[in-house]
Amino acid sequence: MTQRWLQRFDEKDPIALAKLISAVENRLPGYQELLDALYARTGNAYRIGITGPPGAGKSSLVDRLVPLYRAEAKTVAVLACDPTSPFTGGALLGDRIRMQDLVTNDDGVFIRSMATRGSLGGLAKAAQEVALVLEAFGFDLILFETIGVGQVEIDIAQAADSVVVVLVPQSGDVIQAMKAGLMEIGDIFCINKADQGEADLFYKNLQTMLSLAMRDWIPPIVQTVATAHQGIEKLKEALEKHRIFLGEEGLRARRRERLRVFIKELIEDGLRVRLWDGEGLRDLESQLERVWGKIISPHQAVQELLQKRVR
Amino acid sequence: MTQRWLQRFDEKDPIALAKLISAVENRLPGYQELLDALYARTGNAYRIGITGPPGAGKSSLVDRLVPLYRAEAKTVAVLACDPTSPFTGGALLGDRIRMQDLVTNDDGVFIRSMATRGSLGGLAKAAQEVALVLEAFGFDLILFETIGVGQVEIDIAQAADSVVVVLVPQSGDVIQAMKAGLMEIGDIFCINKADQGEADLFYKNLQTMLSLAMRDWIPPIVQTVATAHQGIEKLKEALEKHRIFLGEEGLRARRRERLRVFIKELIEDGLRVRLWDGEGLRDLESQLERVWGKIISPHQAVQELLQKRVR
Repeated sequence: MTQRWLQRFDEKDPIALAKLISAVENRLPGYQELLDALYARTGNAYRIGITGPPGAGKSSLVDRLVPLYRAEAKTVAVLACDPTSPFTGGALLGDRIRMQDLVTNDDGVFIRSMATRGSLGGLAKAAQEVALVLEAFGFDLILFETIGVGQVEIDIAQAADSVVVVLVPQSGDVIQAMKAGLMEIGDIFCINKADQGEADLFYKNLQTMLSLAMRDWIPPIVQTVATAHQGIEKLKEALEKHRIFLGEEGLRARRRERLRVFIKELIEDGLRVRLWDGEGLRDLESQLERVWGKIISPHQAVQELLQKRVR
Repeated sequence: MTQRWLQRFDEKDPIALAKLISAVENRLPGYQELLDALYARTGNAYRIGITGPPGAGKSSLVDRLVPLYRAEAKTVAVLACDPTSPFTGGALLGDRIRMQDLVTNDDGVFIRSMATRGSLGGLAKAAQEVALVLEAFGFDLILFETIGVGQVEIDIAQAADSVVVVLVPQSGDVIQAMKAGLMEIGDIFCINKADQGEADLFYKNLQTMLSLAMRDWIPPIVQTVATAHQGIEKLKEALEKHRIFLGEEGLRARRRERLRVFIKELIEDGLRVRLWDGEGLRDLESQLERVWGKIISPHQAVQELLQKRVR
């Protein structure tokens, strides 16, 4: 990463932004130093996580929400984290292409899709790092859009200042969402496609379940029909109310906790890199030989290796 | 875990088996020593992985396959690894209950469901550990049944001697399976529900794709209708052919590689435990303080912590 790109980044060149994000996402040489250089300028964007099961209409909601923020002259970055598996959520790419068409002439909107590629754990960390670049660029808002079917996707959405869980009114879906851990992380619940299915019953069931949680903040439920532009203003209002509820102190607590999780992940990643250097791999091979020969058990081999490397 | 349970385990008491598996799955105190004690007796079961997208009929296939092995007096253990998310594959539990009814009077069959609970990474390791207990008990065959939608599920299936990828004849499904990484891991492909959809076209597409892979072993394609007991013998024959293809040497190479992956995972888990002891958590807090205050970047904090702990 040359100094020239950093300079163009400072001059708010969107091409330089895309370039820097790619460097971070692909861990190009020097990406860590780049993040170090930008770090002092981070921390000023409001982060919104939008998650829910495949087909709930998250992309459509984001498409409708962005113009409302743009109308207030706020700059918005959207980070859409695709799930590993193509068996779920195949429509995502199509939606993104549509959306990119919509906003291509507006410098105040930036959209980026991130795929998992490789280990699942990597995506949550990479999303956080890309968000730092977006913050340093100066965006007012960052929207994380993830499909809430796996722990990692939920982690990404959860690392936001406000989390919107999007559901569709289908019987049983509330219980499914609860099992997936979505009920605990939602600050706002959005019933999208509220003109379909058993919307009223669904609303009541969801309300009952949320009232049982005994939290200081009882998550409001907003009904939307994103494709018909219905309820989007209400969703935005709910987000603003949650921000007011959090206040300066609540926001700081959330962000500090997020930073703690991020640093822990960086450490575990760094550990893996350090461990599997030349010496580590040689040790692994010689221990493998002994385990294979049933001289020691896998557990015993591991204890010996750890003893040697960890202080 | 008392000595008495180990003795009953040696006497082939299925209650003792279930007890020991629970101890391993739930990481009860002493479970590592238990695995150490059993380790010398492991390694004699043939492991078959069965994976594929939700709704492909994996459970039905396993239900039909097991009696064929039982007819040859082979003992069979089934390890069904449920996915994290309830949004996919809700039928699994129902199937398992049905199957358990079927075989409850046969000591030569053992069925166990494993859920993820907690971190994703944990399931692959736990499944491997439970398989060691099943091997020590003396099962001839272990069937790993997983929904191939996430990396972890694929990892579990892949840690087998022979891997069956189950698909249904739906247009586009071949490409989806390819994207999910299923095409690379399948030793045998099974088109289940072969009486539905565009079965012939699907067969041809799959065949074309598999022939492009340039492997020594071109995976055979078996067509089944599990619910109607069709093609199950053919699937079993394909599995036997693959075993013969592998031979002693090929099998040994696969198992050694599996052991390497397993030990690596144990090491990374053990590292995490060691790292986040009292001192590690205190160090994390003090570094967090400095990062929060923008004195150092997250990356710099991580480097200092690693320097201190890893040799």
